[in-house]
Amino acid sequence: MTKPKSPARKKASYTVAIDLGGTKLLVAVTDEQHRVLASTKVATDVAGGADAIVTQMVKGIRKATRKADIKLRHVSAIGACVPGPADPATGMVSRAVNLGWDTPIPLAAKLSRALNDVPVFLENDVNAGTYGEFVAGAAQGKQDVVGVFVGTGIGGGLVLSGALRRGPRFIAGEVGHFPLQADGLLCSCGNRGCVETLASRTALERNIQAALAEGQSSVITELMEARGKSRITSGLLQRAFQAQDPLVVSLVAEMAHYLGLLTATLVNILDPQLVVFGGGVVEKMGDNLLDLVRAAAYDRLMMQQDFHIKAASLGDYAGVIGVAALAREAFPAHD
Amino acid sequence: MTKPKSPARKKASYTVAIDLGGTKLLVAVTDEQHRVLASTKVATDVAGGADAIVTQMVKGIRKATRKADIKLRHVSAIGACVPGPADPATGMVSRAVNLGWDTPIPLAAKLSRALNDVPVFLENDVNAGTYGEFVAGAAQGKQDVVGVFVGTGIGGGLVLSGALRRGPRFIAGEVGHFPLQADGLLCSCGNRGCVETLASRTALERNIQAALAEGQSSVITELMEARGKSRITSGLLQRAFQAQDPLVVSLVAEMAHYLGLLTATLVNILDPQLVVFGGGVVEKMGDNLLDLVRAAAYDRLMMQQDFHIKAASLGDYAGVIGVAALAREAFPAHD
Repeated sequence: MTKPKSPARKKASYTVAIDLGGTKLLVAVTDEQHRVLASTKVATDVAGGADAIVTQMVKGIRKATRKADIKLRHVSAIGACVPGPADPATGMVSRAVNLGWDTPIPLAAKLSRALNDVPVFLENDVNAGTYGEFVAGAAQGKQDVVGVFVGTGIGGGLVLSGALRRGPRFIAGEVGHFPLQADGLLCSCGNRGCVETLASRTALERNIQAALAEGQSSVITELMEARGKSRITSGLLQRAFQAQDPLVVSLVAEMAHYLGLLTATLVNILDPQLVVFGGGVVEKMGDNLLDLVRAAAYDRLMMQQDFHIKAASLGDYAGVIGVAALAREAFPAHD
Repeated sequence: MTKPKSPARKKASYTVAIDLGGTKLLVAVTDEQHRVLASTKVATDVAGGADAIVTQMVKGIRKATRKADIKLRHVSAIGACVPGPADPATGMVSRAVNLGWDTPIPLAAKLSRALNDVPVFLENDVNAGTYGEFVAGAAQGKQDVVGVFVGTGIGGGLVLSGALRRGPRFIAGEVGHFPLQADGLLCSCGNRGCVETLASRTALERNIQAALAEGQSSVITELMEARGKSRITSGLLQRAFQAQDPLVVSLVAEMAHYLGLLTATLVNILDPQLVVFGGGVVEKMGDNLLDLVRAAAYDRLMMQQDFHIKAASLGDYAGVIGVAALAREAFPAHD
């Protein structure tokens, strides 16, 4: 007896999702259970403008569908998330600094046109990441969730009563710019002392480098030399923290303190059940970092019960899983 | 020809609303156009506990309906707003410090039972005030609004996509406790440097009194003496500000600076179209205060267009008008 060619799978509805970043684009084929069947990464060529990026996106999609062994006609919708304010209703990106876009781009229409009019759903990347954690990650089962992503900056997304909060101007969730030090460091937003200047991964690395330059000693120096690294990676931070390196422990505690203040503020304003923290440093350090954030946050909460802080669980895939789910909801398969 | 007794009005559906505060309760009879037909104020007797307060509420309702010349049977619903977290689904107040309630009270059920089972809708007072401004005040026509009420403390309410955001624990909107000075003054919440300690009416009055005690001169002293006042009323503040009194101008500017930071933070997180400011000092000072708030806020906004700051327009009636509208939506009249 010959094995049938799994017709059920071929008939199923797939969603392709793209997380479009300033340095790379991640393409994933997902199924109805939010599983990633195949994925691929392509370096982003920002210099060529929007049309060149659309061409790259199309190439990435063809590569990912080939890897997943499916045809484009089995794809019911495409989701794309972008590093800027995005309007899902019109499919417009209003601006995206990391992509060099300072005027509105009809990205969904361009991409759809290049792919036989497959419907394209557009979302902001941090919103999509938060939604991913909500549908399939650390925030599953909660209806009110704030996602905080700690990286070069600090970004955030809001799921309130089970729906993404985008805001009428699609800028909701900019949690990185609340002022904690009126006379603090200049922030990328033009103001001073935003939490992003105090508690981002960039801020932590800057503070460590400054202390080393001042002659303070740290196991970080040896770890970097031993591994031939010029940057302080999240992995090195975690090793130094576990070795109880006084400099790293004290600067991570400072970072956690500010993340705790941010968390408490978000909770007192929005009353979520959960704040999910993502980003490389959170992934590597996990509860070593989050226990300090919890301590700082709980100290300031108006109500402590029924509120939790957790690490994100989908890593780099949160965005594609989130925007795939949104695309699936917006364009349900008809078969 | 004798004039008919206006049967149309008698048959219409009325809502009675109560704003239950720690010192007084305001009762209003409202109609479907959010108009207040009659109102009355009763001093709150907190010492007698919840049942005594329910008795006072009933008395207030009977007095207000008499003033409006309607019978209780013409009242289709009662709305009550309270100074604490309230669950509209269960009609429970979880706590209300100003009323001396530290355990949950089934206020809606108690009040309904005392009034022939007229349905009672319960809401937090600041949420109700924000909703009042949304349905019938300064925020009419906007779908995304934050209300900020500046008084003894700083309270807030959120209307997002046309609906009140209460949160699963009914504590959303606590905008007064975001930390602006880590080592600042002790706040009622137990933490230090909350915006409430820097920019509430209490903070402004405290700062002025401290400056006067230190020997600084201000026209406020003369104004208080001339009017035989021992307190710095909002009216006196406005007069001193208009007279360009240096002390009052500088301390009002400081207050406005912090209210601006609060506003910018709320906008960057929630993306409302409008922040409505209420409370006695805002009512008296109006744009003298809000222009300073605007300047401080706009300086920090990620996106400035399509966002506005306005003074509330319903004054003390915002809460009753808001909770009446909510009660009407929850319990539509059947006739």
